[in-house]
Amino acid sequence: MFNKAEALKKLPSINVSAQLAAIVGQKNIITDHVAMANYLSEPRGLFQGRAACVVRPGSTAEVAAIVAFCAETGTKIVPQGGNTGLVGGQTPSERGDEIILSLGRMDKVREVDPASNTLIVEAGMTLAQVRAEAENAGRYFPLSLPAAAFCTIGGNLATNAGGTAAIAYGVARDLVLGLEVVLADGQILSDLSKLKKNNTGYDLKNIFIGSEGTLGIITAVVLKLFPKPRAMATAFVGLADPHAALRLLNLARERVDHELKTFELIPRIAVDFVLAHGEAARDPLLAPHTCYVLLELAGQSKGVDERLRGLIEAAHERGIIAEAAVAVLPDARKDLWRIRQQISDVQACEGGSIKHDVSVPIADVPAFLEEVERAVTERIPGARLVAFGHLGDGNIHCNVSQPIGADEAAFVARWDEVNEIVHAIVADHGGSISAEHGIGRLKRALLPRVKDPVALELMRTLKRTLDPQGILNPGKVL
Amino acid sequence: MFNKAEALKKLPSINVSAQLAAIVGQKNIITDHVAMANYLSEPRGLFQGRAACVVRPGSTAEVAAIVAFCAETGTKIVPQGGNTGLVGGQTPSERGDEIILSLGRMDKVREVDPASNTLIVEAGMTLAQVRAEAENAGRYFPLSLPAAAFCTIGGNLATNAGGTAAIAYGVARDLVLGLEVVLADGQILSDLSKLKKNNTGYDLKNIFIGSEGTLGIITAVVLKLFPKPRAMATAFVGLADPHAALRLLNLARERVDHELKTFELIPRIAVDFVLAHGEAARDPLLAPHTCYVLLELAGQSKGVDERLRGLIEAAHERGIIAEAAVAVLPDARKDLWRIRQQISDVQACEGGSIKHDVSVPIADVPAFLEEVERAVTERIPGARLVAFGHLGDGNIHCNVSQPIGADEAAFVARWDEVNEIVHAIVADHGGSISAEHGIGRLKRALLPRVKDPVALELMRTLKRTLDPQGILNPGKVL
Repeated sequence: MFNKAEALKKLPSINVSAQLAAIVGQKNIITDHVAMANYLSEPRGLFQGRAACVVRPGSTAEVAAIVAFCAETGTKIVPQGGNTGLVGGQTPSERGDEIILSLGRMDKVREVDPASNTLIVEAGMTLAQVRAEAENAGRYFPLSLPAAAFCTIGGNLATNAGGTAAIAYGVARDLVLGLEVVLADGQILSDLSKLKKNNTGYDLKNIFIGSEGTLGIITAVVLKLFPKPRAMATAFVGLADPHAALRLLNLARERVDHELKTFELIPRIAVDFVLAHGEAARDPLLAPHTCYVLLELAGQSKGVDERLRGLIEAAHERGIIAEAAVAVLPDARKDLWRIRQQISDVQACEGGSIKHDVSVPIADVPAFLEEVERAVTERIPGARLVAFGHLGDGNIHCNVSQPIGADEAAFVARWDEVNEIVHAIVADHGGSISAEHGIGRLKRALLPRVKDPVALELMRTLKRTLDPQGILNPGKVL
Repeated sequence: MFNKAEALKKLPSINVSAQLAAIVGQKNIITDHVAMANYLSEPRGLFQGRAACVVRPGSTAEVAAIVAFCAETGTKIVPQGGNTGLVGGQTPSERGDEIILSLGRMDKVREVDPASNTLIVEAGMTLAQVRAEAENAGRYFPLSLPAAAFCTIGGNLATNAGGTAAIAYGVARDLVLGLEVVLADGQILSDLSKLKKNNTGYDLKNIFIGSEGTLGIITAVVLKLFPKPRAMATAFVGLADPHAALRLLNLARERVDHELKTFELIPRIAVDFVLAHGEAARDPLLAPHTCYVLLELAGQSKGVDERLRGLIEAAHERGIIAEAAVAVLPDARKDLWRIRQQISDVQACEGGSIKHDVSVPIADVPAFLEEVERAVTERIPGARLVAFGHLGDGNIHCNVSQPIGADEAAFVARWDEVNEIVHAIVADHGGSISAEHGIGRLKRALLPRVKDPVALELMRTLKRTLDPQGILNPGKVL
């Protein structure tokens, strides 16, 4: 039997980019290596690859035609949004035979429906633009990430992004009502439902959300909108240890759960790093404390600041907190947030840093942090644990900075060794080695060691079933 | 090659119940037809079937052994929780060769972790018991259904139940962190994660939630717990029409979104039915109104009743509402809820009723209701639309009562004809023909007519992949 796919693959003269140009137009194909550079490595330079070309479709029909062509020819596709992913999921391999399918041109609004609290946009719209569109409609879209100006909503969903508002509004998965997805054979799955309740069969959208482009290419999404918070109040609280932070979290949930928008744990060392290397930073509290919580309430009704003050007083009476600064005005809020926002960046000023994006059950966080600090400093005396992040979700960015004066390269060379120490403690606590960044290339080799074997086999079965040729984002996740 | 499954199937003397008794013990097998009766038909008597036996496992290992035996012998399995489903998903076929796997004995708590706000229970625990366990731990589990005393949490998840608190806390799917599932080959998928954030691979749990027992059998679940609401306030509001109800909904979201726990639309005819046939019912308002909203706020902080009063005053000033009764004390709250809770039951006193469990985008609800009323009464003059339910989720139970004095049997015989009229209007609005009850046997034939063909084929692919022999709940959904 004549096998067209095999025949096409064997043709030495086949020019993938010329074929794709027929679909999207020559000006939307990039083959020049200089022009491709921005797509081939991610901003930190941790992952780099090569590609046959970059193709930039302008519509779902074009994406479908590209994928159909790739399915026919066995061409492998790396879908790419804003190229801000942290695990190399958006970077092609070194082989050079993959194409990068950039969603960047698909950045249009399809529908705004403020009365239904829904917004339908194409996958290539940046998160910042999505938030602006919601704002223009008198609504609020809560997903908040440092990369908002560059990352795309399609990428946010492909990686099930988290961020600092997840405690109140959930992760990216929770903010979606419907999806449009191009499947591995080029068919378009049209599930752009605006419904909050729809029990007509299997939940297909969640198969694709968080699958990092390995099961289908998200081309459009129906997002949930929320009322704009009418009042906000923010506090920076000093505490004796993470146990106290956990007690504060539970008191906050009891008293102001519905308004608790942010609950971020910050260790003293992170504040020190920001004060030493950050911009316009000052210590918001009089005395130093072992750890801090950045706490924000957002609500619809008056009295949010009174309720925040009431919470802080109650926590102080119970001996949970040592000191607190409260911000109600926007500039003061920004000052407090600036400390949190600079933590990731300023770590680089202190030399090498070995990073972990992990989660454990919330109650386990304090013990987990103690065990990690002990184990890491036993192995590498002087190593400095900088564990910060979303305590309200049990998700701590458990980074380890090099000992002062140590050799940076030698320290970073121990990346896998330190990962192994931390991930073993994560496993002891029933935690996750990737809470919000995903698996991508970075953690692919680790997955079989931490995942239930039945779950892993079911993932492989899904991949074989939905992408039998393995053309979608090969070498990622599985 | 010797095929054990084929050989076993062909053995005429094979006694399924004896083999299953070896797994669960003779006392946990029911073969007597009288004793089986409660499992073979559902409480309303709409669906009935026959079965080889009922098997009642006491552990996940026993469920796995039963399913492995069934996979080996090609025996078909109907999983059953509390047998309260409304679409026949839990009822066996007429063939009599299926077994019913009742989860009722698996009703134990596995772990309570109030500090992490999680509860792990077996699938056969009733919803009422789950709520009681949360309460005992000083926490709250929000899923609220009329069948709470009988339905099981496993059944709630298998059907992705909704209920009256979904506007605030989401549907069943949203209340789950992890699952344990027995797959069609008897393997146990152990995904009992307590993590809010876990991006290590594909989202497997949502494949099984809402799959109505056709892809796997849920045996245990990790549920999210919430702080107990410390204050509640309830109002019964009279309005001129559903447009006004929608305006009230958006005003409520703007002013008290985080505390809005219930927003139920009730038409005058439903109040009339309850007043005529219900228990201890009185009209809470002075004058009759075209429609009503039962509105409830639940919060953690003081002032909920003031905020409810403020909302009502603001709505009144804007001309949105005509009259309102506010209840703060528990007995007064119960009085208001009693009207809502009796609507389904009292409809039977008015003769035949053709039911629809549909949803449309929230903004479309008023137009949708007008179109349905016009179309149905054009076809059946005198037919009475009783459209009530979860306006906050766009989910309306759009029931049609027979004309006064008409022949009940003749009216109910027009079930499919009326369904077709209503579902056509649902489709025009991009709605769902099953918002919260599922597909089961009742709507199986309708599914191909309303579902995107690519989505339907993907569902079939999932079914073939996860249950290649088709032994799990055959004849349901697909």
